[in-house]
Amino acid sequence: MILILQPQVDSESAEYKKLIAALSVLPNIQVRTHQVLGARQTLTEIYLLGDTLSLSIEDMRSLPCVERVVRVSQAYRILGRHKDDLRPTAFEYNRVRFSQDDLHVFAGLCAVDVRENVERMMSLLRDNGLVCTRMGAYKPRSSPYAFQGHGKTCLPYVFELAGKYGIRVIAMEITHESHIEEIRAALAQTGQATGVMLQIGTRNIQNFELLKTVGRQQDFPVLLKRGFGITLEESLSAAEYIASEGNSRIVFCLRGMKTNLGDPHRNFVDFSHVPVVRRLTRMPVCVDPSHSVGTRDKSPDGILDILHATAQGIIAGANMVLVDFHPVPEQALVDGPQALLPSELPAFLEDVRLVRATYEKRRALFRPAGPNAS
Amino acid sequence: MILILQPQVDSESAEYKKLIAALSVLPNIQVRTHQVLGARQTLTEIYLLGDTLSLSIEDMRSLPCVERVVRVSQAYRILGRHKDDLRPTAFEYNRVRFSQDDLHVFAGLCAVDVRENVERMMSLLRDNGLVCTRMGAYKPRSSPYAFQGHGKTCLPYVFELAGKYGIRVIAMEITHESHIEEIRAALAQTGQATGVMLQIGTRNIQNFELLKTVGRQQDFPVLLKRGFGITLEESLSAAEYIASEGNSRIVFCLRGMKTNLGDPHRNFVDFSHVPVVRRLTRMPVCVDPSHSVGTRDKSPDGILDILHATAQGIIAGANMVLVDFHPVPEQALVDGPQALLPSELPAFLEDVRLVRATYEKRRALFRPAGPNAS
Amino acid sequence: MILILQPQVDSESAEYKKLIAALSVLPNIQVRTHQVLGARQTLTEIYLLGDTLSLSIEDMRSLPCVERVVRVSQAYRILGRHKDDLRPTAFEYNRVRFSQDDLHVFAGLCAVDVRENVERMMSLLRDNGLVCTRMGAYKPRSSPYAFQGHGKTCLPYVFELAGKYGIRVIAMEITHESHIEEIRAALAQTGQATGVMLQIGTRNIQNFELLKTVGRQQDFPVLLKRGFGITLEESLSAAEYIASEGNSRIVFCLRGMKTNLGDPHRNFVDFSHVPVVRRLTRMPVCVDPSHSVGTRDKSPDGILDILHATAQGIIAGANMVLVDFHPVPEQALVDGPQALLPSELPAFLEDVRLVRATYEKRRALFRPAGPNAS
Amino acid sequence: MILILQPQVDSESAEYKKLIAALSVLPNIQVRTHQVLGARQTLTEIYLLGDTLSLSIEDMRSLPCVERVVRVSQAYRILGRHKDDLRPTAFEYNRVRFSQDDLHVFAGLCAVDVRENVERMMSLLRDNGLVCTRMGAYKPRSSPYAFQGHGKTCLPYVFELAGKYGIRVIAMEITHESHIEEIRAALAQTGQATGVMLQIGTRNIQNFELLKTVGRQQDFPVLLKRGFGITLEESLSAAEYIASEGNSRIVFCLRGMKTNLGDPHRNFVDFSHVPVVRRLTRMPVCVDPSHSVGTRDKSPDGILDILHATAQGIIAGANMVLVDFHPVPEQALVDGPQALLPSELPAFLEDVRLVRATYEKRRALFRPAGPNAS
Repeated sequence: MILILQPQVDSESAEYKKLIAALSVLPNIQVRTHQVLGARQTLTEIYLLGDTLSLSIEDMRSLPCVERVVRVSQAYRILGRHKDDLRPTAFEYNRVRFSQDDLHVFAGLCAVDVRENVERMMSLLRDNGLVCTRMGAYKPRSSPYAFQGHGKTCLPYVFELAGKYGIRVIAMEITHESHIEEIRAALAQTGQATGVMLQIGTRNIQNFELLKTVGRQQDFPVLLKRGFGITLEESLSAAEYIASEGNSRIVFCLRGMKTNLGDPHRNFVDFSHVPVVRRLTRMPVCVDPSHSVGTRDKSPDGILDILHATAQGIIAGANMVLVDFHPVPEQALVDGPQALLPSELPAFLEDVRLVRATYEKRRALFRPAGPNAS
Repeated sequence: MILILQPQVDSESAEYKKLIAALSVLPNIQVRTHQVLGARQTLTEIYLLGDTLSLSIEDMRSLPCVERVVRVSQAYRILGRHKDDLRPTAFEYNRVRFSQDDLHVFAGLCAVDVRENVERMMSLLRDNGLVCTRMGAYKPRSSPYAFQGHGKTCLPYVFELAGKYGIRVIAMEITHESHIEEIRAALAQTGQATGVMLQIGTRNIQNFELLKTVGRQQDFPVLLKRGFGITLEESLSAAEYIASEGNSRIVFCLRGMKTNLGDPHRNFVDFSHVPVVRRLTRMPVCVDPSHSVGTRDKSPDGILDILHATAQGIIAGANMVLVDFHPVPEQALVDGPQALLPSELPAFLEDVRLVRATYEKRRALFRPAGPNAS
Repeated sequence: MILILQPQVDSESAEYKKLIAALSVLPNIQVRTHQVLGARQTLTEIYLLGDTLSLSIEDMRSLPCVERVVRVSQAYRILGRHKDDLRPTAFEYNRVRFSQDDLHVFAGLCAVDVRENVERMMSLLRDNGLVCTRMGAYKPRSSPYAFQGHGKTCLPYVFELAGKYGIRVIAMEITHESHIEEIRAALAQTGQATGVMLQIGTRNIQNFELLKTVGRQQDFPVLLKRGFGITLEESLSAAEYIASEGNSRIVFCLRGMKTNLGDPHRNFVDFSHVPVVRRLTRMPVCVDPSHSVGTRDKSPDGILDILHATAQGIIAGANMVLVDFHPVPEQALVDGPQALLPSELPAFLEDVRLVRATYEKRRALFRPAGPNAS
Repeated sequence: MILILQPQVDSESAEYKKLIAALSVLPNIQVRTHQVLGARQTLTEIYLLGDTLSLSIEDMRSLPCVERVVRVSQAYRILGRHKDDLRPTAFEYNRVRFSQDDLHVFAGLCAVDVRENVERMMSLLRDNGLVCTRMGAYKPRSSPYAFQGHGKTCLPYVFELAGKYGIRVIAMEITHESHIEEIRAALAQTGQATGVMLQIGTRNIQNFELLKTVGRQQDFPVLLKRGFGITLEESLSAAEYIASEGNSRIVFCLRGMKTNLGDPHRNFVDFSHVPVVRRLTRMPVCVDPSHSVGTRDKSPDGILDILHATAQGIIAGANMVLVDFHPVPEQALVDGPQALLPSELPAFLEDVRLVRATYEKRRALFRPAGPNAS
């Protein structure tokens, strides 16, 4: 880490001495000072060597005399891509493989409402050859007076039906650590009929206690949704929270950023970050076109914006798509009207396959010459 | 609630029928349809009457044919200001009164480091006539590798020292429900030497499970910090989460919004919302100039930006100021360099008194003529 | 237009009378008042009929008693898509056809530097079968001390070389009305060797005087870049400024929005709005991946982020791509290092063709059954 | 300027050589390379010395191998505060003195409508002892179909009435260079009855041609409004554009930033930047509470948000207040309903005086001990 000091800093000044004093007590850090005599002024820089990962750029920047701070080491110790890094980039869960080379569609209900609709959905998925889904039992809502999900009461029949229709992985949001145990119990009760990927929603992206809890268990992989209002770097650091506790089976999900610059979409679609997350980390990248776009508007070519956004994610290499369907959207209790219809699933999947095949051709076109390039 | 439909909606269309079907199943809601024949087109509106508070504007807006949704009832059932509302707007905790008519300064340590510094701080406060402080034991940090606070181990000496120096209320952030019990235990152990106001930080503003937990207890009042990345309305709804569980002793804290439009300050100072929160709700309003401004820069008049921001909050009616001090800022483990110095406290308080007195003169200047206007 | 009043408005109040007085003087507007007796409260709405396009929502919203304003007529009178609208959606310029059904690549220099590089670029384009390019002569820069472009002095050789290599349309930014005449003169001087599409940059999106000037001439079509810091609706209204003066040969360009939520890209890529602009207006939609992304970073699949963003625009139906190339990027005076290299052009074009073909397949997949669907 | 390279850069690599080649052709720049052998890695930095002001950070950052760029020289050559800088910080225009030590209220009409209202306003100002005002003749509007101001036709009577009532300076927005001549002509026609401060609005903040034009004339001082969507640094650089052409009599105006984080205010009030602009530059700082707040809402203390925002600007040292009044707001053609009423002017001014006096007390409290501290 480098601290670039303000120009013309006087090494005899009280401010400078304060800085040096503050640095000298940092544990396991060596401090080296460099001065450069320039045409116009003298520059001073301080190099911090050693265990700099424990230092925050923000803290260092606010020390006296410091103008800028540069971190030269890797930001994401566990999840990041490092030079000559041979660690595996894939994981398997309940016979489904997740990596930066795969693509899975998780179509399903934003919120579980009644058993009948769950069964219709599961049946539809099986008929279309899908083995993953999304099912919301615990719903965080902005208002305390809005429907909050059926919670653990719906879990047994959701899992049982999943098993009946061959569903292997359900992405399911949790908002409290107790939900993990409820899910574990319901799975046991149904004879491990299916698998669950624990989803942490955008509102809990910096609920570090919950992140640490899902990081400490090894039963379930985690789907972490990017936070709104914070930088991509901070959201990726939240993923590192999970990994630092021991569980690095994490899929990172882009779901749009909350700003009126994205109007008339519900959120500002951020799928241009698909290649960025793939570059900065080894996590598979998911896109959620339903919550990003938030409407069923379509362009004059007859294609829904939700499908355009899906295509934009996949053409850039996305590894997972989380998308809302509902057998009877007008009965849905949450976000119904952005849901796709059962009749739309075959064309949706055809579109996904078409665009994914194109992505693979693009990858072949640009593949580095080397023997083991990914 | 009013749903304004797209112009020229055909009441025989499939879309329209879907809408009516969706509305007809809403529980405890009556539906009335109005049509207006205009010069250019026919307009249709649908009025939803009854238990509309359970409906989300977003959900309704996404129904077919709907162009806009207007909620005509009050947003904040418990905390809001309603017509002819005579509910009390003040509460007392440990002999300190909080209301929209009071002003309290909570100067203290962003993060507890060593006992010696805690004692220096407490002693300083007593010498300056203050009975409230801030002390951070549990620190949420963006990186898992940064210092996370001393947690419960420091509580006994913090509370004991508070009692020794006459401190009655400590604002203390918690990030997990177990922290409440830890605080309760340490207070009991020290013979209720002081009081604690539970602080929920900006990162947990939509950690609804934590909000509900602090709402269910009555031992401690709550200081809720506005969230970044969400609207003011959503942050106030988060406060309503706490209140809806039974505890309405809540102070709402403005702490700056995270956007580069606020550069070179650490956050975009949002104290212009002080009168807005006072108008929309009955909560006392706190400002946090230290985290909003985030630097010790000063303008050519010799006044720190932190003090200018403080004055801006108070001149508009703020009821509480949360401000970082540290006896030896260069030793601080978190945010040290934005901390004010012990030697700066007397002038800080003089400034606060001066500006508060001016606010009171302004209030007298504009006071409505009526007998019991607040 | 509908004004929805605050609930419980008293029609005898002074505020209400002010509102009615203000509305009564609006020219060519009829006012109708409706009251609805609800379960909880009485609602009042006011319908404004007639020449409501001259009213601003913002102005109306700020009238006394008004809670919300809804505009029920079309926002974009000239450029918008209207029901049963048979107006042409394509235009031809210098034998190149622009419409929502075409796709053109404008590869070229961000800023003209020396004649030799212009010739290298033109020659490269011809060799790759391209007839359009971008060439910057007038460069608006944030700092007055940065290079501002060679201006009119370079025009003659740029146009002459364009003619020599068969280039038919050059997108060229102008920042002052006098530049139009300079371009016109240089074209005349070179015997109309090529054509020019006048580009209005993001910084001038609300320089209404310049918009009106380009709207008053018919010699050149216009490429209008979306503004940062304003809504999409406001940027589209800026296009309507041009059209309202008589020139509706306008291509609308997405170029990323300026917010730190887009980091580490230079801007937040906004190509998810491609279908939105196509739906709201009849303008062809351009994407500018170079300025949106702003780096040459690539993901592990070996594909540059700039190419991923290009693909994301095209897969959703973009009609034009504006992309920076430079024969010797390290010599470029502006934005050189984000430029693609001559050696990269063939694969870039192959990628464009591949993704465009996929878009056309997607369109066929979803094409409405009707005979004359676009 | 310092370029900090990516860690472990190989000085034999092609990328590195490209970088060096690009730097070697920069005019009037010396290049020095430094390498630092650290515990974990080798760091390389490149110092650019000489005429670095002509280089853009963005351009340098995008060169190969570069990780970060730091500019060590002053950003605002003319308007900035430099060490040991004795240049004057005040200017006088038409017998009114503007500086960082003064305070002037510019109350007036957002848009001129009819002569009668202009005269009512001028008369009101005189009766309250004011000699400055705001009058809008040229109004940039988001929609081409909205009222655009009366333009030059109203200038003669506006200036004549100003003279009649002793008004010395009118802040008046211009949107085209021709407006300067129109104003000059109308002033001549009325015998220089008053003075004009040319206002550049937020939409034209990066209309560099207009900035250069107002910078080239010396007849009128300039009021520059901060741009939305760009950083404060970029807006201050726009002021430097004016100064670099010769006219440094500039007042910088804060007017709120456009983001939904500021809701329910029309814009996000940014007056916390008053001390920042005073620190970074020598320009007097204006605040515009009317357009920032945009409503006549008031808090329970009976004080309008507009007045709270005004007080927040003044308590932090603002030097000018631009505020909308209208004799008959419901007749106003633009932004009428946010206007203050004539009957409110005396209390407004009393409030301004009270808060300004408090600011002066604050300044005395913190004044540095030195003899000639400002």
